[in-house]
Order: sequence, then C-alpha cells, then structure tokens
Amino acid sequence: MALVVQKYGGTSVGSVERIRNVARRVAKTFDDGNEVVVIVSAMAGETNRLVALAEEVCEFPSEREYDVLVSTGEQVTIALLSMCLQSMGYNAKSYLGSQIPVVTDNAHAKARIRSIDDKRVREDLKSGTIIIVAGFQGIDDQGNVTTLGRGGSDTSAVAVAAALKADVCEIYTDVDGVYTTDPRMVPEASKLEKISYEEMLEMASLGAKVLQIRSVEFAKKYNVIIHVRSSFNDKPGTLVMKEDEEMETVLVSGVAYNKDEAKISIFGVPDQPGVAAQIFSPLSDANITVDMIIQNVSHEGKTDMTFTVPKADCKKAVQIVEEVAKKIAASGVRYNENIAKISIIGVGMRSHSGIASTMFQTLSREGINIEMISTSEIKVSCIIDAKYTELAVRVLHEAFGLNSTESNKA
Amino acid sequence: MALVVQKYGGTSVGSVERIRNVARRVAKTFDDGNEVVVIVSAMAGETNRLVALAEEVCEFPSEREYDVLVSTGEQVTIALLSMCLQSMGYNAKSYLGSQIPVVTDNAHAKARIRSIDDKRVREDLKSGTIIIVAGFQGIDDQGNVTTLGRGGSDTSAVAVAAALKADVCEIYTDVDGVYTTDPRMVPEASKLEKISYEEMLEMASLGAKVLQIRSVEFAKKYNVIIHVRSSFNDKPGTLVMKEDEEMETVLVSGVAYNKDEAKISIFGVPDQPGVAAQIFSPLSDANITVDMIIQNVSHEGKTDMTFTVPKADCKKAVQIVEEVAKKIAASGVRYNENIAKISIIGVGMRSHSGIASTMFQTLSREGINIEMISTSEIKVSCIIDAKYTELAVRVLHEAFGLNSTESNKA
Repeated sequence: MALVVQKYGGTSVGSVERIRNVARRVAKTFDDGNEVVVIVSAMAGETNRLVALAEEVCEFPSEREYDVLVSTGEQVTIALLSMCLQSMGYNAKSYLGSQIPVVTDNAHAKARIRSIDDKRVREDLKSGTIIIVAGFQGIDDQGNVTTLGRGGSDTSAVAVAAALKADVCEIYTDVDGVYTTDPRMVPEASKLEKISYEEMLEMASLGAKVLQIRSVEFAKKYNVIIHVRSSFNDKPGTLVMKEDEEMETVLVSGVAYNKDEAKISIFGVPDQPGVAAQIFSPLSDANITVDMIIQNVSHEGKTDMTFTVPKADCKKAVQIVEEVAKKIAASGVRYNENIAKISIIGVGMRSHSGIASTMFQTLSREGINIEMISTSEIKVSCIIDAKYTELAVRVLHEAFGLNSTESNKA
Repeated sequence: MALVVQKYGGTSVGSVERIRNVARRVAKTFDDGNEVVVIVSAMAGETNRLVALAEEVCEFPSEREYDVLVSTGEQVTIALLSMCLQSMGYNAKSYLGSQIPVVTDNAHAKARIRSIDDKRVREDLKSGTIIIVAGFQGIDDQGNVTTLGRGGSDTSAVAVAAALKADVCEIYTDVDGVYTTDPRMVPEASKLEKISYEEMLEMASLGAKVLQIRSVEFAKKYNVIIHVRSSFNDKPGTLVMKEDEEMETVLVSGVAYNKDEAKISIFGVPDQPGVAAQIFSPLSDANITVDMIIQNVSHEGKTDMTFTVPKADCKKAVQIVEEVAKKIAASGVRYNENIAKISIIGVGMRSHSGIASTMFQTLSREGINIEMISTSEIKVSCIIDAKYTELAVRVLHEAFGLNSTESNKA
C-alpha cells in the first residue's frame, strides 16, 4: 500500500463536472489500494473573481484581509470534492490549512511554510478516509490566515507529501508533463520521462510554467518525487526527481524562452571601485530584480554596463538609472524592451564541453545576433532580438536532438 | 464611550457599493466615540449560489462539508468590509468564527453557541481597532467549522454582544423596525418604539420574519438590548428589551399571520388512555413538528382530533396518520392546506381580560369562521380559511387600535 498525494489545479476542478472527474480519479487511486491525500486549488476563475472584488473595494487591499478573502476559493473546492466522494460511497474529509495546521510565517500573500502537523491526517488515513486539503493556504503562529502566493498549491502539495513521507506527489495539470520546450511553439517538442530537480528549477525560473519554483525547491530539499501529469487522460507524465546517471548522458534536456524581460545599458561609466553598487543598490531598494549583468572591458577608464530587469519594472528602473548616471557622470542610458532570453538546460553540461559553442554556432547560422550571455553549471542563456524567439527555440531544439521521433511521440 | 455591536444582513452588504455604505455607518459610530464590533452576513445571493453548487454535486451533502462550503460567504464579506474601512483610514481587523473563537456544539448546519472568548477582541478594541466578525459560523471543540442555520448571523451578533457586555446590539435590516403587523398587507401598520422579548418571540414564531427566534432567546437570557433598524436610513428603529410597565398598558402589540401550516383531522378516535401518544409519536419520530392540537369532547367513547403541521410536511404526516388510524380503528382522516393562523400578541393580556373575546367578535362580525383556537399567556391564535387572511389581519389591527395616526406615522 502506497501513500499517494495528488494535487489538482484550478482548471482540473473548474466546474462541478470536472470535480466529478477528479473524484473518480481519486476514488480509483484509493480502490487500487493506496492511501490518498488530495490537495486542490480554487475553481478556475474564482481567485480572479475574488481579487476583482478586493480591487473594487480599494486600490491597495491589506494583505491580511486579502488572504482572508482569497483563501475562500480553495475552501469551496475542498467541500465540493469531499461531498462528491461521499456521494460515491467513500469516506472523505476536508481540511483547511488552519485545521491541519499548515503553519507558515506571517508574510501575507507570499507566506512560507514552516511546519505541517501530520497527526490528524495520519489518524484519518488509518481509518480509511480520503483526505482533501485546501492548497495555497496556511495559518501563522497568531492564528491569522495566510496564503502562499499564486501557484502556491503546488508547494502545499509537495510540503504535505514531505510531511507524510508520501511515496509520490502527483501534480495534475492541463498538460501531459514537462516538455523539452513549449509544444505550442515547437510541435516536435517531446515529453520528458524524467527530469532532475536542478533542471526543473532552471526551467521554471527561465520561463517554463509547469511547476512553481518553490515547490521544486521544497521537493529537492525533502527528496519528494513529483509526478507531473494530465488530469484529462491516464498517460504517465514526467517524474521530477533526484539526478541519476541516465540523466547525465543527455546533453540538453530542454530549451526555454522568456519574453518578459527588458535590457538596460548605461554607457561611459567611470571604471572605479563601488560604481556597480551605486547603480544596483537603488534598484534593489526599489524591489526591482536584476537578472543578467554584463560589463565590458574598460577603455580609457570608462566601461559600459548592461543588465536585464522584468519588463513591468523597466520604466521605473530606467528612471532610477538615469538619476544614478548623472551622479556618477556616465555618458548615457538606453533601454530595449524587444528582447527575449533563450536558454538551454541540462545536467549533462557538467560533464560535457562544447555545448555553449554549439548553441552560439546554431544561432549564428540563422543570423541571430547574441546581445548578452549568461551561464551556470547546467544552463546557458542568451539575450536576442525578440522577433527571433520562435526561430531560435526551434533550431536549438533540433540542434540538441530534442525533436521527437515517431517512436517517442506515441 | 459605549460598546456598540452592529449586525448587517445580506441585503445591507449585497454589493461593493453597499459595503461602502456600511463602512461609512460603522465609521460614523466609531467617530462618535464608541467601540464598535460589526457582525456581517454573506453578500445577498452568495449563500444561495454556494448551496446550488452543493446541490449540483449531490442530493444530500454531508453537513460537515456543507458548513465548510457555506461559511465562505461570510468570510468574503468580513475581508471586504475590513479592507474598505482600512482604505478610509481606520484600523479594522476581521475575525472568523474559528479565530475568536465562537465555540458551538457539533450539530452541523444548526449548531448552538456554547461559548465566546472575548479576550482577543477586547485587546484589539483597546487599541482603537474596529472589529469585523463573520456571522453565522463557529467551530466545534474538534476544530470543525460549524454554522448556526439560516439567519444565524442575528444570533452571532447577540451572542457576541452578550460576551462583550455591549451596551446595545444594533441589527440592521431592510425594514425600519418591528411593525404592529406586516406593512405590505396593512399600510396603516405602525412601527413599535419598543417591544418585550416575550412578544418578539411570539411574533417571530407566529410568522413575523424580522429576527431569528434563537437570537431573541439569547438576548432575553443575557438581557441584551436589540435595536432593530434600517441600514438605508438614520431613523431610530425598534428596541427589543425587557418588559417594562409602559408595555403592559398596551393590550395588543401586534397582529401576526402564518400561511405555512396545514390542518389534519382524525375522526372517530377511541377515547382511551395512550391514544394521543399513538398518533403523535410516529409524527415526532419523522421529525414533523406539530403545532396546535385540539380534541373534541368524547361522544359514545369516540372523539375527533385536529392538529396543524408545516405545510411542507403535510403529505408525509397524512400518510403516517392514515396508518395509525387503521391500527387504532379510527373512522377517517382528512386534511386541509388552505388555512391561515392569525394571532394577536401582547404582554398586556396578562393583566387585561376580554381580549380573546374581542378577537372572536371581530372575526365573527366579518363572517370569518374560526376553525381552531390556541392561547398562551400573551397571545391568542385562530385558524381560519386562508382566503380571509388579509381581511382578518386588517380588521384585528384596527379593532385593537394599532392603526397608525398621522402623528406616529411621521
């Protein structure tokens, strides 16, 4: 008998009919002889409806009250799914974050899980009950309702799986698994049978939207095997797990892209100690996340610096940098919002050389200019002109042998 | 400085715009130098929406999960009202039933309040915070979410007022207060300045829908003064309070009617000990509430019995009684759903005679036949043909001097 944790996202529970489908899948897992704990999100559209209500009331709702409001979405789903299972003749019981309890810090709207008490859930499991848990929500040590931020239900599921030492944490979504790249862009993209935590983390942070980054960090820390799969069919999906030897033989596991960044350059910067801090401290103070940074070699005591920021923060960042430029007597500031970041990811890079240069050659062959480069142990990212995004993803996907053959497409 | 508890029903918080109105009223009460605790219901329509979801999932939802589901309605309102007050510059904080906590028994969907902890609320009040409490909901001693049944927010408000020893519990609704009778039926109905708990209880149980019966019982037990008033204007409403001398001078305070009952007669019942139990025990076992019962004098060892039940249970009751009739060899069963119960209520009856006979004469003068009579210390009820309901209410209202004069209509 295995202990299976299953998580169903908003689309999977988006209507009463879909909740019934989820109930059937949960029941089947239980009938197969497993203990089952289910984590659910709010019905698709519900969280947006609640947020719209808050925005109608005031521009900047208090985060404590925001959490009280939006956490009702998951509460509705756990009740409906429990009722549905009960009407099918199963013992089912819903749990709010506060009832388990899932204890978090008090950072409302983006709380982090501190501990999960498994006592009550274990007792109920022992008595043959299917447990339905509200994802996304917790309670701080003062008893205030907290939420984990958008996509937080993934993290709830992995954290519950870790607390219960579950055999697997199945994350059901509207895609079949993790793909070598976005299948909407590259029809030849193939589903990965398995992927390491590290690769999944890079993919998530580079733009792939399958799993929330924090849930993968959690899974890595507690060694929880995640099975990403579709709630609309029975095909096996992708296992996210500890790196194994087989994974290392693959050079590149996936190609990711991100069009949500903008590039800012500051020219003629006096090349002296402390100047980088003068530029980036005010950006950090304004809560703007700087991603890639490059600095050219110095020429006559002057240098150029280029970095990327989220597109949404670009205007604000440019304003801040222009003030700094005056102060440090730099010669000018320019920005460009029409860029894309293209990345290749693979733990195989650790033990194989020449992968970055294959990437550069492939892009060059198509006449795609590389504006910035950033590398880590298991990824290489290039900033290019946004209009070449699709082309770059397609040619890299092919160059690294990721295009599906007829056999693995089946 | 007074401590004021205010309760706003679903219509009063039925939209964001109305929640803003409520916030302004709450803020004004606070600005006037009072400590304020607000109890709110779900936004109008929300509870029905949630119940419809449950019914779509299954025919007989588990009551535990039903409570988890419907309690989200009030949770949404407390968050929105708190946000609204905060955006106006006030300190406001929401409380769920589980956060106060409001501890109830475990009778899901119709739980009774056992205790309310006033510690956290008192501390927040001391720091100048306006407290917003979710009505209708509580938590049992196992941490399960419970609800108090439809209209339970009135009871929440009175119970919170009792726990905090509030100076007044203002219940805001869509009517101006308690009227001598239904103003939609009798335009001359006048608003009562005050009414005793006992009269209010009789009125509520006889069909007036202003306050939930249990909230009045609670108020009576803990001597909480209820002020029933409208959330759409600033006029004073009706005080529900301990009987005083002034009230006793009034013969009749109000005329109530109820068209939701049906009458069942069983003829030729052998007049012997235990026969009443044989008839009414199976009805009680089937959870059917029997209201009025009359038994005619015995004639040749046989008697007739007539009683009323809720119209919704009539068919089921007739079926049960027909079986009993066979068993005890009664001669027949008949029922009539076209009846109405007309009642006059007043604590003045205790010290004045002739009130019942005035009622009978008034009905008789209009040719209205009285089919059953039931009396208590402070009320007289008559069952009549339903088609005379309006006529009976109007003539009784006038006969007991309740029609408003120009002066008290203003």
